[in-house]
Amino acid sequence: MNEVPFKGVIAYPVTPFDNNENIDIPLFRKQVERLIRVGSHGIAPLGSTGVMPYLSDDEKESLTETCLRQVAGRVPTLVGVSNLTTEKTVYHAQFAEKAGATAVMVIPMSYWKLSDDEIAKHYDTVASKISIPIMAYNNPATSGVDMSPALLKRLLEIPNVTMIKESSGDILRMHSLRKELDDGVAFFNGSNPLALSAFAAGARGWCTAAPNLIPELNLALYDAIQENDLEKAQQVFYKQVDLLKFIVAKGLPRSIQAGLDLLGVGGGGFKSPLQPLDADEIAELDRILSTIDNEVYQY
Amino acid sequence: MNEVPFKGVIAYPVTPFDNNENIDIPLFRKQVERLIRVGSHGIAPLGSTGVMPYLSDDEKESLTETCLRQVAGRVPTLVGVSNLTTEKTVYHAQFAEKAGATAVMVIPMSYWKLSDDEIAKHYDTVASKISIPIMAYNNPATSGVDMSPALLKRLLEIPNVTMIKESSGDILRMHSLRKELDDGVAFFNGSNPLALSAFAAGARGWCTAAPNLIPELNLALYDAIQENDLEKAQQVFYKQVDLLKFIVAKGLPRSIQAGLDLLGVGGGGFKSPLQPLDADEIAELDRILSTIDNEVYQY
Amino acid sequence: MNEVPFKGVIAYPVTPFDNNENIDIPLFRKQVERLIRVGSHGIAPLGSTGVMPYLSDDEKESLTETCLRQVAGRVPTLVGVSNLTTEKTVYHAQFAEKAGATAVMVIPMSYWKLSDDEIAKHYDTVASKISIPIMAYNNPATSGVDMSPALLKRLLEIPNVTMIKESSGDILRMHSLRKELDDGVAFFNGSNPLALSAFAAGARGWCTAAPNLIPELNLALYDAIQENDLEKAQQVFYKQVDLLKFIVAKGLPRSIQAGLDLLGVGGGGFKSPLQPLDADEIAELDRILSTIDNEVYQY
Amino acid sequence: MNEVPFKGVIAYPVTPFDNNENIDIPLFRKQVERLIRVGSHGIAPLGSTGVMPYLSDDEKESLTETCLRQVAGRVPTLVGVSNLTTEKTVYHAQFAEKAGATAVMVIPMSYWKLSDDEIAKHYDTVASKISIPIMAYNNPATSGVDMSPALLKRLLEIPNVTMIKESSGDILRMHSLRKELDDGVAFFNGSNPLALSAFAAGARGWCTAAPNLIPELNLALYDAIQENDLEKAQQVFYKQVDLLKFIVAKGLPRSIQAGLDLLGVGGGGFKSPLQPLDADEIAELDRILSTIDNEVYQY
Repeated sequence: MNEVPFKGVIAYPVTPFDNNENIDIPLFRKQVERLIRVGSHGIAPLGSTGVMPYLSDDEKESLTETCLRQVAGRVPTLVGVSNLTTEKTVYHAQFAEKAGATAVMVIPMSYWKLSDDEIAKHYDTVASKISIPIMAYNNPATSGVDMSPALLKRLLEIPNVTMIKESSGDILRMHSLRKELDDGVAFFNGSNPLALSAFAAGARGWCTAAPNLIPELNLALYDAIQENDLEKAQQVFYKQVDLLKFIVAKGLPRSIQAGLDLLGVGGGGFKSPLQPLDADEIAELDRILSTIDNEVYQY
Repeated sequence: MNEVPFKGVIAYPVTPFDNNENIDIPLFRKQVERLIRVGSHGIAPLGSTGVMPYLSDDEKESLTETCLRQVAGRVPTLVGVSNLTTEKTVYHAQFAEKAGATAVMVIPMSYWKLSDDEIAKHYDTVASKISIPIMAYNNPATSGVDMSPALLKRLLEIPNVTMIKESSGDILRMHSLRKELDDGVAFFNGSNPLALSAFAAGARGWCTAAPNLIPELNLALYDAIQENDLEKAQQVFYKQVDLLKFIVAKGLPRSIQAGLDLLGVGGGGFKSPLQPLDADEIAELDRILSTIDNEVYQY
Repeated sequence: MNEVPFKGVIAYPVTPFDNNENIDIPLFRKQVERLIRVGSHGIAPLGSTGVMPYLSDDEKESLTETCLRQVAGRVPTLVGVSNLTTEKTVYHAQFAEKAGATAVMVIPMSYWKLSDDEIAKHYDTVASKISIPIMAYNNPATSGVDMSPALLKRLLEIPNVTMIKESSGDILRMHSLRKELDDGVAFFNGSNPLALSAFAAGARGWCTAAPNLIPELNLALYDAIQENDLEKAQQVFYKQVDLLKFIVAKGLPRSIQAGLDLLGVGGGGFKSPLQPLDADEIAELDRILSTIDNEVYQY
Repeated sequence: MNEVPFKGVIAYPVTPFDNNENIDIPLFRKQVERLIRVGSHGIAPLGSTGVMPYLSDDEKESLTETCLRQVAGRVPTLVGVSNLTTEKTVYHAQFAEKAGATAVMVIPMSYWKLSDDEIAKHYDTVASKISIPIMAYNNPATSGVDMSPALLKRLLEIPNVTMIKESSGDILRMHSLRKELDDGVAFFNGSNPLALSAFAAGARGWCTAAPNLIPELNLALYDAIQENDLEKAQQVFYKQVDLLKFIVAKGLPRSIQAGLDLLGVGGGGFKSPLQPLDADEIAELDRILSTIDNEVYQY
C-alpha cells in the first residue's frame, strides 16, 4: 500500500445533470478526461464540488465506477464516501475500494455535534473495513465540527489514515498541523484562496476544483513552489486569486459549471433545489476569466 | 384545512435504537404515549431530537406510521420531512400526508448555501404537492442558511405555508417577525433557553423536547403566559432554565435519552457515530433533575 | 448608604457641543431638565451616550458638576467614571462623590484584555477610595472584555459594588445572573432592544438614552411590568421597538441628538471625528418618530 | 520627503514602569538601544506593545523624546500618535514631527463606530497638519473598526498617507490590498503568526515586538524572503512560530516584558490595572525560549 499516494494538484470534477435531473454521464466523462489531460496530479470524484451529499446511493455508485473507468489508472483517485452514519460510510468506502479507488476521503459529517471519541470511533470503524488509505478531511464550515490538531494526530494513529485535508480557512491551523504532527505526515490544502499561504506553510498538495477552469495557473503555482521560487509563485498566484475567491464565494458547483459553459466545454445542469448562477454572476465570472492571461486547453 | 393547527407546547419524541441499531418500536410507542398523557398540545416526530437526518427512508416511514397510529388524533401532529433535495422532500411530505399527519415541518437543509430564490422555489414545489399546512423552520446553526424575515414573509405567501418555527436563538429576530408579519401569522419558538423571552415576545407555541423530562414545568410556563401572569411565568421559568440549557448544550437526543433512563422510562440506544452522554454528564443531569421541584408522571 | 438607589428607567443625557467643539452647557442643562420632568427615575451623565471617552478631564468635571446641580437631588444620579487606568478611575470616582453623585458606574475598559484578577483588583482599588455605591457594567462590545457571571459574583463581594448593568445583548446572560447571584442583587438592562425580555427576566431597571425621545413609552413599559401586565407590556414594547433598534444601530449620540433636533429641543453638535447622521438616516428617524403614537412633552 | 521610509523588521519597544508606576526611563533607553544593536530596520515607540493608550500626555512626550534621542537617526522611527479625538491626534502628531520622528502611525480609534467619511476626514485633518509620512493602521480587534481595502485606497489619496499596516489577521485581506492598491503602495504586516504568509503575499515589512526576544530569527525570516529562498524562510519561521503565537495569545506587553526578564535584560513593571504574567505562563514562555535554537545578543 502506497501510504501517501498524492501530491500536487488534486482536481475535483463536478456532477452534471440533464434536464430531468439525471446525471449526464457522457458529459461527466468528458469533464474528467479533460482534467487528466491538462495534467492534474489526481482526480477526486464525489467531493463537495461534485455535490455528493445530494446524490442517491445509485448515483454515487454509478459516478464512482464511471470516473475510475475513465481515469483508468493514469493518475491516483480519491473518492468521497462521507455519510452521517458510520454504517453508510463503511458501505460507500467498501464500494469505492472494490471499484478500484486509490484512496477515500472521509469528513465527519455531523447534524448533532460529535465528540472527539465519537469521531475517532467513526474513523476507526471505517478504516478497519477497508485496506486503502483514508484522507481525513477537516472543514468546520461544511461538517459543523472542527477537528483539533490533537484529534487529527489521534486519527493518524489509525494505520490507514495517512493524509489530512485542511479546509478551515485558517492558515494558523496549518502551522499547528505542521508543528504538532510528525514530519512524515502529509497535509493537503482545501481552501482555494489560501493556496499560496498553504504551500508556503508546507502543504504537500492542493485539493481544488479550479483546474476545471484554469489548470495551467494552478499547476504553475505548484511548480514554482517545487522550484523554491517564491517570487514566481507570488506572481502566478496573484493572476488567479480573483477566480479562486469567486468560485468559493459563489459556490463551487455553480461557479465551475458556469465556467465550463463559458469555456465551451459544457457544465451541465443541477439537481433541485440548486440552481445555476444568475446572469450578473455569470457576467462577472466571464470578466474574471477573460482577464486571466491563460490559454485553457480545449478538448 | 385548519391553517394553524398548533399552539402551546409541541413535544418532540426521540428515536430509540436497540443494540443492533434498529429502531426500538415498542419503546418509541411508550415514549410517545407518555408525551400525550402528560398533556402535550402536539407531537412532532422526525425532528432534530428524533435524529431524522440519520434515518433511512424505511426507518422514517416506519416511525411516521407508528407515531400517527399511537397519537390516533388525540392531538395534532407535525412530521419532519426535510431533505437536501426537493425531490426527496416532496416524497416524504406526501408520505406524511397520506399517513395522516396534521402538518409537516420543512427546514431548507443546505450543504451548498441556498439563495432566497432557491429556497422559495423549494417551498413552492413542496407546498404544491401536498394539501396539509407547512411550518417553515429557521435554524441557521443546523441548516447553514439563515432565512431573513423578508424571505419568511415571501414564503408565507404560499397558501399552505402558514407557520414559522424560529430557532436562531436571537430574540430580536422574533421581534422582527412579529413586527413585519401580519398579525394572523403564528410563530413558534424552537430555542429552549429563550422560552420565557419568546412567549413574552408573542410566540404562539414552543417546539421542545423538554416535555420528555419536565412536562409539568413546560406546560405551567405556557399556562402562566395564557393567564397574563408574568410573575408566575418568571418563577416557573427559573425552575426549569438549568435543564433547558443543559439539553441544548449537550445535544437533545443524548440528553433526553439519558434523562428518560434516569426517570425509569428508558431512553434507548443510539445509531453510530452518535454515542450516549458520558458518566460525568449523566451525573450532572441527574443533579439538575433532582433539584427541580417537579413530580414527573410515571407510566 | 442606600445600597441600590435605582430602579425603573435611568435616563442617559447626551453631551452637546457648539461649533467650536466646546460643550454647550446651557443646552445640556435644558436636556437634563427635560429628562427629569418627563419622569425619569434616575439620571446618568458621562455614559456612552454622553461620549465620555472623548472628553478631557476638565470637560468631565464641568459636566458632572453642571448635571448634579441641575438635578438637585430630585432623582438619584449615576456618574460614569471609567478609565483605562486604575489611577484615573479613582480620580474621577472621587470627584463624582465630592460633587454629590448618588453612585458611580465603572466598566473595565481595556485595550489589552484584562484577566479576572486584574479586573477584581481594579474594582477593589476604586471601591476602597470612595464610599458611594458602584454599578459594575458589563459590555463586551465596548470594553473588549466579557465579565462572566462568576466574576460579577466576585465583584459583588466588594461592599459598595451593589449593582450590575448588563449590556452584552445576550438574554441568556441575564438568566445566569438571576440564577447565580443572590436574590437581593439588582441587575439593570443596558441593551435597548432587549427591554421587554430583560424585564421579563427580572431586571430591576433599564439604563437607556431613549427617554430623550420617547419617555412616555419607556415609562409605560416599566409600569406595565410593575403591574404584572404582560399583554400591555408587549403592546407598549412593540410600539417603541423600531426606535430602540434604530438608536442602537446608528449609534446613541448621533441618533439621540438628531432626534432632539427633530423634536425641536436641539441636540447640539459633535466633537471630531464624530459627525451627525446623514440626511437619509435623519429622514428614517423622522419616519419612525412620526409613526410612534406618542405625545412627547415639550418644554 | 522619503515617502516609504521603512522596510524589513520594524521593532516595537515596551514601556517599562517602576514600582511607583512611573516610566523607568533608563531601562527604556537600554531596551531601545538593544533593539537597534540587534539590527532592527526601524523603531516604533508608543505602539500597542508600548501601552500607548494608558499613558498621559506627559508620559507620551517624554517617551517620544527619549526614544528619538536614543535612536539618533541610526534607523527610521515610527511614532504612535492615535487618539479618540481628531484634536488630540493632531496634537501628538505635531509633537512627534517636531521631536524628529521619521513618520507617525495612526489607527482610527473608535468608541462609537466611525463611518468611512468620518475616518477619511480624521486622516485628512491630521495629514494636513504635519509634513512627515503617515502609516494608516488597520486592526479591527483593537480599534473596533475594520477599514476596507476601498477605504484604505481612499486614504492613500491623501499625499502623506503612504503606508498601510494590516493587522486584521486575515491573509485574504492582504491579498486584496496587493491586488487593489497600486504596485507602489507598501503594506506592512502587523500580525505576528502570519509573518511567513504575509511575506509570501508581498508584505514590505513586519511590525513586531518579537525582536525584543528573538531578533535573529525575525531578521533571518526577512533575509530568506529577500533571497527568494522559500525553503529557508519556512524552516526559520517554524523555529519561531510558537513564540509568535504565545506573545499574541498572552498579550504583547506582558509577554515581552516577561521575556526580557528571562533574558536578563529586565522588562520593568506595569501600570495598573495591567499586571505581569502569572508563574505558569512565565514557565511556559521560558520553555518556548529555551527550545528556540537562537543566540540572543546580550548587551
